[in-house]
Amino acid sequence: MVLIAREFFVVLVEPKYSGNVGAVARVMMNFDFSNLYLVNPCELDKDCFSRAMHASSIIENAKIFDSFEKAIKDLDFLVATSSVATDSEKKHLRKAILVEDFSKKILEVDGRIGLIFGREDFGLYNSEIEKCDLLVKIPTSEKYPSLNLSHAVCITLYNLYLSLKSPSLKTGRRLNHVEKEKLFEFLSLLLDEIEYPEHKRKNTMIMLRRILGRAMPSKWEYHTLMGILSGTIEKIKKIK
Amino acid sequence: MVLIAREFFVVLVEPKYSGNVGAVARVMMNFDFSNLYLVNPCELDKDCFSRAMHASSIIENAKIFDSFEKAIKDLDFLVATSSVATDSEKKHLRKAILVEDFSKKILEVDGRIGLIFGREDFGLYNSEIEKCDLLVKIPTSEKYPSLNLSHAVCITLYNLYLSLKSPSLKTGRRLNHVEKEKLFEFLSLLLDEIEYPEHKRKNTMIMLRRILGRAMPSKWEYHTLMGILSGTIEKIKKIK
Repeated sequence: MVLIAREFFVVLVEPKYSGNVGAVARVMMNFDFSNLYLVNPCELDKDCFSRAMHASSIIENAKIFDSFEKAIKDLDFLVATSSVATDSEKKHLRKAILVEDFSKKILEVDGRIGLIFGREDFGLYNSEIEKCDLLVKIPTSEKYPSLNLSHAVCITLYNLYLSLKSPSLKTGRRLNHVEKEKLFEFLSLLLDEIEYPEHKRKNTMIMLRRILGRAMPSKWEYHTLMGILSGTIEKIKKIK
Repeated sequence: MVLIAREFFVVLVEPKYSGNVGAVARVMMNFDFSNLYLVNPCELDKDCFSRAMHASSIIENAKIFDSFEKAIKDLDFLVATSSVATDSEKKHLRKAILVEDFSKKILEVDGRIGLIFGREDFGLYNSEIEKCDLLVKIPTSEKYPSLNLSHAVCITLYNLYLSLKSPSLKTGRRLNHVEKEKLFEFLSLLLDEIEYPEHKRKNTMIMLRRILGRAMPSKWEYHTLMGILSGTIEKIKKIK
């Protein structure tokens, strides 16, 4: 038997309204989640605890960080949520999968999974979304797509709760943070070697991150991909 | 063609916190619902409108009733929501179907459909549930099943929205058969060029097919992947 260690972390980036933080804590407990990370939050005042109801322990045990980078440092797989997603083929950064599909796919990932929710007003910045493996979109009305922060968390956790409860086929272990970065380092090296156009590079690297984020390679697949990549890079270098 | 006239009404029974009413209005607009009925609500003060954000028109147009009976008088089909449901066959009153199943089944119903949500503290009374056609349950943690009112509305409307919209939720175009085979042909060519071990080839090709099968690249991603692959193969050939 393979023990799958999968742990979820709800990460709120710079929440402005303490009532929202409380409402998030409550809905986390409603769906059996408990790890809360807060990046530069507002003051967690009375309003926060009164909205949290019986989930005040989640607030009390929340970890507080002074930067996004510090908050994600120990997380293996990062999932950003956005209401400003796009179906455009050209905008890789904001290319998202639906929350329903995500909650099934995530069963293939183990490790420490961060569910990142942006600011009430500005959402997540591009520089933050770039660091995420997957962008998830909650389908909403085109007329008024912007969900309240705790509603976005609510729908995400509800979908996850359903998926986690329904028994499913567990597959092997997935990549951790270090392996993933090594893979992207080699992909970047390959682009160097083939003199890939500089102006396309950034978008292409984000696209590769999204493709692999959706594919969620296993350890075994990782070693095979690394074998092909390093073989290719060596070949080009040797014969140059 | 049969024209189905189906209209939904969100009915809040004696809501106590005006902020919740506002949050309900906002999430209604997020999912394209607009009819709000209120039975003996609290005062709809500033807190209500600030939480409603751009959905204040829903509050302004809400119909207010002084009894449950009056509110449901012109509704054809009544759906109660409850966190206190039961699986027991003997307790018909509290026998519920899951919200996911409900949102598919409701497509078979037309007319004026009322979605009834109870009080923040006491939910719906038995005398009210008795008058409903269906009881719907949102699956939640056994440890803390009680959802915030606006979260219960949020999950119910989200599920309905998906059901009502489902044919139109398709994301961008995916690869057709020819493109997919072209991609694998190029991957195979690359393995040739790097003299990939023959005994590993078949498994590796299957693995690449699985990885890309899970990632489901879009047309645009396909062209980028093909660009990298052909660039790599040319590079190796040119310098050979």
